[in-house]
Amino acid sequence: MSEANRSMPAEETFGIGDIRAAVERIRPYIHHTPVMRARSIDALLDAEIFFKCENLQKVGAFKFRGASNAVLSLADVELERGVATHSSGNHAAALALAAQQQGASCLVVMPNDANAAKKAAVEHYGAEIVLCEPGLLNREQTLAAIAGTRGLTTIPPFDDYRVIAGQGTAALELLSEAQALDSVIAPVGGGGLLAGTAVAVGTTAPRVTVIGAEPAQADDAYRSLAARRLIPVSHPDTIADGLRTSLGTLTFPLIAAHVEGIVRVSERTIVDAMRLIWERMKLVVEPSAAVALAACLEEPERFRGQRIGVILSGGNVDLNALPFD
Amino acid sequence: MSEANRSMPAEETFGIGDIRAAVERIRPYIHHTPVMRARSIDALLDAEIFFKCENLQKVGAFKFRGASNAVLSLADVELERGVATHSSGNHAAALALAAQQQGASCLVVMPNDANAAKKAAVEHYGAEIVLCEPGLLNREQTLAAIAGTRGLTTIPPFDDYRVIAGQGTAALELLSEAQALDSVIAPVGGGGLLAGTAVAVGTTAPRVTVIGAEPAQADDAYRSLAARRLIPVSHPDTIADGLRTSLGTLTFPLIAAHVEGIVRVSERTIVDAMRLIWERMKLVVEPSAAVALAACLEEPERFRGQRIGVILSGGNVDLNALPFD
Repeated sequence: MSEANRSMPAEETFGIGDIRAAVERIRPYIHHTPVMRARSIDALLDAEIFFKCENLQKVGAFKFRGASNAVLSLADVELERGVATHSSGNHAAALALAAQQQGASCLVVMPNDANAAKKAAVEHYGAEIVLCEPGLLNREQTLAAIAGTRGLTTIPPFDDYRVIAGQGTAALELLSEAQALDSVIAPVGGGGLLAGTAVAVGTTAPRVTVIGAEPAQADDAYRSLAARRLIPVSHPDTIADGLRTSLGTLTFPLIAAHVEGIVRVSERTIVDAMRLIWERMKLVVEPSAAVALAACLEEPERFRGQRIGVILSGGNVDLNALPFD
Repeated sequence: MSEANRSMPAEETFGIGDIRAAVERIRPYIHHTPVMRARSIDALLDAEIFFKCENLQKVGAFKFRGASNAVLSLADVELERGVATHSSGNHAAALALAAQQQGASCLVVMPNDANAAKKAAVEHYGAEIVLCEPGLLNREQTLAAIAGTRGLTTIPPFDDYRVIAGQGTAALELLSEAQALDSVIAPVGGGGLLAGTAVAVGTTAPRVTVIGAEPAQADDAYRSLAARRLIPVSHPDTIADGLRTSLGTLTFPLIAAHVEGIVRVSERTIVDAMRLIWERMKLVVEPSAAVALAACLEEPERFRGQRIGVILSGGNVDLNALPFD
């Protein structure tokens, strides 16, 4: 990578151009994932749902888009020193593979309660894992100390324009295949996917409403938008392990500017939505991915009769610890 | 349906023409399922595997192809009286939907130990269920009595040329998308899928080896081919519930004529293969569907370096009773 390829726009200039640049940059490395339908789910909700299957993305999650865009934006000298991140799982695996593809080393700080499948994936892609206590602050401090000592370039899981731009590419693909949508729903944790989706959809298809879907038990995005300031959650308790993080200082304003609203969903509805996707679509999705469909189940009147794009964000679950009973 | 549309070839004339006719007959009603790849499974086996995803077929199984071809081959007077079958599950759901699509009634005799998800699917498609004791003989006797009384047309789950022809259409689709295969592997229970696959591949791509995959604990196909006569199993004990039936008088000679061999797989390998498909491909497949990949795991040297078509036959599992531990 040359310096000319770097993409770190200032906040005021971040926009659709960055996402379109990411499309070109990551195209050779990612899967163009399918958009799937399920007539029985359509019938249940009296709506037409277009599922963007990022569970079929490399490493099993949309996170590979953002991680790839970030790694491909680095200078050669940065790639040589290696990259590092903290993540509850999918971003870690994504960065590990993106680094491996470019011949760079990767170090990952993970909470010691991260699920086994996600840890195994990170190791599979050749990254070094350093465990720490759960909690965002612990992860950030551990990462900063090690990255500083070793001269590693930190690639954050969501609060980074290179990452947000990469995540936005999934929505552009979805819009190109599912015409005349009324709304697009994406799950929101740290907000990388929702911010990228919001800019992609809000700019190229302004008539399409962008909705965030969030566990009620980790509803910092809902409360932050209502209060018009960041209100992080601490120790959220939700099965949707990818959505326990709070919005960041870069993702929040993008979401505030382009997202129509946040739908909060119960834990029960998340499992119901997950079961529907597994049983009716024969797709393995993780709880965080089911949250977007859960929004439709939670507020059916809001979405009745609509053509809805739903981003299935990932499929990494521990098959030994499933929530069905 | 007019009489002219009926397709009940004599044994000696059954062939690729029947399968090609089925392709045209069922095309408006079935899903053309995708062929998927999984690089990590390829790497594990040092082979290139092309998965024909019949778990994404309507009703979640290839059985919808055969059932549709049979129903669409009926005369109007037969459709008006209704259809009936016995099945451990997927054929029942398939026939129920195929009948419903043509406005015909459907009655299903099921063993009282059939899994909950399969029973629910049959009811969902509007069929009437009559439960009986497990065992092929019980099912056949119960069905014959009711169908005789009510004047229903019986559509057998596998030993019927209309059904075999329908099942063979999946292999034709697979061959059209995956070029230059060395072998095609299909699971074998009653043999409808394997017989249809064998005729489709053996006739149109004679250089491609057709292999059957069978649980070692229900290995009637292996033993029947070795003995050159039908040797049914009684009370087979395997997790692959769709493969507990034995070959039929129509499927056996077609398989004997066109299939290179049968690979027997252990229960442990079936679960290992199922886990690989769930974790690496994010696809929900039932144990019977995993048996074809299990054949590659069981005899890796046999398939090393090959381009292999694997038919994932279905995805109907009871999420409350999964085999992972």
